[in-house]
Amino acid sequence: MANQSKSVELFDAKAIAPFFESKSLAVIGASTDPIKQGGRPVRYSLMSDYNGRVYPINPRADEVQGAKAYASLADVPGRVDCAFIALPAPAVEAAITDCAEKGVRAAVIISAGFAEVGPEGRRHQERITAIAREAGMSLVGPNCMGLMDIRRNFFPTFAPIFGFNGEARPKPGNISLVSQSGAFGAHAYELVRARGAGFSKWVTTGNQCDVEVSDFVAYMADDKSTDVIMVYFEGNRDADKLMAAFRKARENGKPVVLLKAGRSETGVKAAVSHTGSMAGSDAAFDGFCRQFDVHRADTVGELIDISVAAAAGKFPSRPRAGLVSISGGAGALMADYCDELGLAVPPLPKPAQAKLMKLFPFGSALNPIDPTALWGQDMSVLSASMETLLKEGGHDTVVLFGSTIGINEFNRVRFEEHIIPLREKYPNPLMVLSLLGAPELIQKWRDKGFLIYEDARRAIEVTAALAKFAPIVAGSRKFPARPRVPENLKIKPGRTFNEADAMGALQKAGIKFVRRRLATSRKAAQDAAARLGFPVVAKIASAEILHKSEIGGVALGLENKRAVGEAYDGLLGRAKRAAPKAALDGVLIAKQISGGVETILGVNNDPGLGPVVMFGMGGIFVEVYKDVAFRAAPFSKAEARAMIAEVAGHAVLKGVRGQAPSDLGALVDALHNLSLFAAANKDTIASIDINPFVVMAKGKGAIGLDALIEPK
Amino acid sequence: MANQSKSVELFDAKAIAPFFESKSLAVIGASTDPIKQGGRPVRYSLMSDYNGRVYPINPRADEVQGAKAYASLADVPGRVDCAFIALPAPAVEAAITDCAEKGVRAAVIISAGFAEVGPEGRRHQERITAIAREAGMSLVGPNCMGLMDIRRNFFPTFAPIFGFNGEARPKPGNISLVSQSGAFGAHAYELVRARGAGFSKWVTTGNQCDVEVSDFVAYMADDKSTDVIMVYFEGNRDADKLMAAFRKARENGKPVVLLKAGRSETGVKAAVSHTGSMAGSDAAFDGFCRQFDVHRADTVGELIDISVAAAAGKFPSRPRAGLVSISGGAGALMADYCDELGLAVPPLPKPAQAKLMKLFPFGSALNPIDPTALWGQDMSVLSASMETLLKEGGHDTVVLFGSTIGINEFNRVRFEEHIIPLREKYPNPLMVLSLLGAPELIQKWRDKGFLIYEDARRAIEVTAALAKFAPIVAGSRKFPARPRVPENLKIKPGRTFNEADAMGALQKAGIKFVRRRLATSRKAAQDAAARLGFPVVAKIASAEILHKSEIGGVALGLENKRAVGEAYDGLLGRAKRAAPKAALDGVLIAKQISGGVETILGVNNDPGLGPVVMFGMGGIFVEVYKDVAFRAAPFSKAEARAMIAEVAGHAVLKGVRGQAPSDLGALVDALHNLSLFAAANKDTIASIDINPFVVMAKGKGAIGLDALIEPK
Repeated sequence: MANQSKSVELFDAKAIAPFFESKSLAVIGASTDPIKQGGRPVRYSLMSDYNGRVYPINPRADEVQGAKAYASLADVPGRVDCAFIALPAPAVEAAITDCAEKGVRAAVIISAGFAEVGPEGRRHQERITAIAREAGMSLVGPNCMGLMDIRRNFFPTFAPIFGFNGEARPKPGNISLVSQSGAFGAHAYELVRARGAGFSKWVTTGNQCDVEVSDFVAYMADDKSTDVIMVYFEGNRDADKLMAAFRKARENGKPVVLLKAGRSETGVKAAVSHTGSMAGSDAAFDGFCRQFDVHRADTVGELIDISVAAAAGKFPSRPRAGLVSISGGAGALMADYCDELGLAVPPLPKPAQAKLMKLFPFGSALNPIDPTALWGQDMSVLSASMETLLKEGGHDTVVLFGSTIGINEFNRVRFEEHIIPLREKYPNPLMVLSLLGAPELIQKWRDKGFLIYEDARRAIEVTAALAKFAPIVAGSRKFPARPRVPENLKIKPGRTFNEADAMGALQKAGIKFVRRRLATSRKAAQDAAARLGFPVVAKIASAEILHKSEIGGVALGLENKRAVGEAYDGLLGRAKRAAPKAALDGVLIAKQISGGVETILGVNNDPGLGPVVMFGMGGIFVEVYKDVAFRAAPFSKAEARAMIAEVAGHAVLKGVRGQAPSDLGALVDALHNLSLFAAANKDTIASIDINPFVVMAKGKGAIGLDALIEPK
Repeated sequence: MANQSKSVELFDAKAIAPFFESKSLAVIGASTDPIKQGGRPVRYSLMSDYNGRVYPINPRADEVQGAKAYASLADVPGRVDCAFIALPAPAVEAAITDCAEKGVRAAVIISAGFAEVGPEGRRHQERITAIAREAGMSLVGPNCMGLMDIRRNFFPTFAPIFGFNGEARPKPGNISLVSQSGAFGAHAYELVRARGAGFSKWVTTGNQCDVEVSDFVAYMADDKSTDVIMVYFEGNRDADKLMAAFRKARENGKPVVLLKAGRSETGVKAAVSHTGSMAGSDAAFDGFCRQFDVHRADTVGELIDISVAAAAGKFPSRPRAGLVSISGGAGALMADYCDELGLAVPPLPKPAQAKLMKLFPFGSALNPIDPTALWGQDMSVLSASMETLLKEGGHDTVVLFGSTIGINEFNRVRFEEHIIPLREKYPNPLMVLSLLGAPELIQKWRDKGFLIYEDARRAIEVTAALAKFAPIVAGSRKFPARPRVPENLKIKPGRTFNEADAMGALQKAGIKFVRRRLATSRKAAQDAAARLGFPVVAKIASAEILHKSEIGGVALGLENKRAVGEAYDGLLGRAKRAAPKAALDGVLIAKQISGGVETILGVNNDPGLGPVVMFGMGGIFVEVYKDVAFRAAPFSKAEARAMIAEVAGHAVLKGVRGQAPSDLGALVDALHNLSLFAAANKDTIASIDINPFVVMAKGKGAIGLDALIEPK
């Protein structure tokens, strides 16, 4: 359990708290123009009820927007908790030095022109970070849009809020956002607002020279005024911290909804050039999100709608939904979406169906329920359908497709008469509507407790996401603990591996390999083959020749001693010609194996996520179908099982077309053990490949036939 | 070319024209209540400038909503072109008889309670259809919402239009809709309207007892006031007509955008119960849409947005886009979407990049272009970026992510100053914006000629779809002609097939099979094997035992005469025990083949699409990865090539991991020939399986090892 407590200690709440508990804010570079970046925090503070002090710092003005200005930070009488720095990049270092001298505890640097523009900017950024660390001051930014604590009216940001004339006062809510991109943060702010919801904390981290996304996620996971954590992510530094932050959010029952750019090559380039973050494998990041139950959204709309819906606090008790539609076609579409997204659409019990069919004999009362055009004359067919799903169908989630109900005045009135009262009668179920209406009307109905979306697809996407969050929020699911990584799995730093070494090291970690011998003479090779039993394979063993087959370093199907002898000489000869300077450790003789299902196990040390274990189906199809799953190391056996179930080829392992089921238990053990080994050696190993890893029939185990370890 | 002209003649324009050219409309069951279904068409006609005559038919009123009413259709003085029937189902038959007697040319039946409720309703529906056919009258419905010809103010529909007080007068446009679902049609109507666009024709077809979706698509393909055809589809009757309709739309340069429910089992059930249509394979329908360049949308929003965008009439000349984003993160996201949806994002030429980098030294001028937060002070960095993409990047499609620009008053003013004039300066390029703003503002900017979407994902989806439509609209792409189906491929109706027969019939059609002999004695089997060369396989031949391996009817790897003899006796013995009554035609002896890439060719006679050819990769993975492609028969070699390129396993055929490329030409020939054979025998054959079909190395051909034909 040592590691579990350690993972919590990774966060120093004291590094984040000053941003949200400051009682005074200095705006360095405060502008008299309330529209300028340096003018906005002053304007926002003056317009709101921030009950701390605001100090504009401007050597050329006595007064900024009506507030007394100071020529320098040193001139401010009394303590300054937080500083907002809106200066050109060259002036930032001096300002940070001033902050350090004044005892500022936290600074927000919005200035651009640091690590994102090249090596010189990076060095500048490192200097200011060093000054801040020395002084025990936390930094957000540079190259960000600042942050807000809306409940406290604390606005060290130049995001366009309050509206042009103060008409759009920020509305506090229970969502907190961490966005690496400032502009994206401002965009998300408006979208949440447009949906009638609000933020508690709102943070943009930019270049993350000091505190980073995971620090804020961990803080928000413990923050009483945050129920949902929304993340816009570009890249990461500390994998352990990120894992610990997501784990903490999950343990505290807080849904995390995340958007990350960089699925494509052009996208990655654009993201990297943006805040200078390192890009790892996007597929690995997908696996990482699944591992920690983070909902990774594909679009901005999905990010916002799911976050806002989760903030409303109603979750399906089971992944199933009752559907009612005024259009049979839309009902069928919603059923399709449910199927795709993992929501069951179980039919109503027969007696309940019969009752409804009396109301609409030409409709369908199965689920989806289609009461036909009758609803146009008599809206009670809709409310009766919904009520039947709730009372007799055992549903606590009902989705109604109501099309133009909110547009047509006649329908609107009937709707408010028949459907709205259902909400009051059944306060607990999740009620989702897909319909069109004027924004004010939609907001009014939202305020009654309905989730409302124009598009039926979004209605189902949101419902499915809420169903996945439900056990997290309820605290009803047991999460796999972070496994302990045994110290004795650590290999010596600087060690290199020929294939025999790699197999040996991994075998010690609990991963089985084919029977083999390392031979250093022709005779020894022949004797080894005879002891192992023919046929055998022979492979060159050298820590300096890792990709053996490229140089003809592998001989397969050796049936007798003569063949082994020839192979021995041939392999050494080819190796010497191909890599004259490589140290050759001999030839590895291994039993040739047939049967079983070929899989691939691998580890890649991702720049942002640390060692990530890959599992996939082997053979030529792995390249074609890219049927692989990823998990960050270390992980439990339960996680290994989830990982195997994630690949489509899982069906082959379970046995298709009359083939025997494979030894899944042995595969699970291997993946779990590989994850421990990878975690133990994250500082020294760059990658591991076990290809093929052959899974035999149930009870017969699973063994690697090839191993490769590349040191860092 | 006989068939091509035939496919055009499938449509009788005279069957559809009366709906859109009527000069008089009788509303049978006209209600004095303008809200009731029978009251609405009267109300709409009176509110609008329909320059024909409207006759309310109501035996209990002298006047309906101010218009003179008639007790019966016979009482109407003069001619009635079109009738709208809003009566309970039991009264419809008499009304249709009245229409026939009055010489009505087209009737719209909205009444429910016909084929969709069971056999009795179906018989009723068949009776009214027969009466109409006899009288040469076309029917739309029953169980539909009617239709509109908005340019002519012709409104035989009870869709909720005009608004409660006539404030929402239908606006004519150049999109025409055919929807099988009435409620869906009404929904689509409002969504198009909300986006500021309008319809030319709007039709809901319901149970389609007479004219169906394809008739209207074909009519709209020729209709001068229709530029885009929007379809909501549930099921189909006549495959040839549907193909011909889509082909006609494509040849006439009109984009077709389609939504179809029924991807999942529950969805299929719901769709079938809705209008009583037959459901075929959804994956086959996907292939069908690709074959005819129909854009199949996944969501209602996608259907609407792509249709409305296509109606605006600007298309990218090439599938590539220049991206500008005020958020680097959003720019990266858009690049990801482009990559996924087939749009290139080529970088700007270096000199153009250098010029832009002078404007925003901390940004990125590659593409996507990210001018950093500078745009907030100086919006000209955005217009300069867009203009550089147009002038120096060779782009004619620019997508700008503008986030909250339409919300913030300060930004809005600058935007109208800098960006809007670009539209006037460059009238031809496609300019797409993703930003937030008040609906009136968005509409104003749309009217200037920008496509505008809140979500960046939708902006890219629409752009990608327009790029795909571009060559169709421009008429610059040559479409494969419908191949002629040779008459001599037709097999005798009632014929059954043992495996040797199936191979023989398919071989005549140009599909090669393994060398084999049908043996009817032990001796003949042994001689055949010797002539073919060992090893051979032996399989039971019987038209009544189609699934041979299930009864042990296949023996593999027979190396000599003795083994063949034993196999012969064994196969016949097992066949007799398993199917004592089956006629056994002997044993098929075939050369055993090794090497090559295993694929599967198949045909399934789809209830809605006719014979659909399937191509997929073979082996156990086909079941796991479902890596298959479909095309409706017959199709050209070009289409066969497209079909092969559609499966991921295509890479294996092209040669991966140093394997030789396969004989794609031979595979193309086989698929094309199979499609001709399937089309020739669509009335007699239910399904064909050629599994495996082995594709050898380039130049070595491709042969089937197994064949199965199931008669209808």
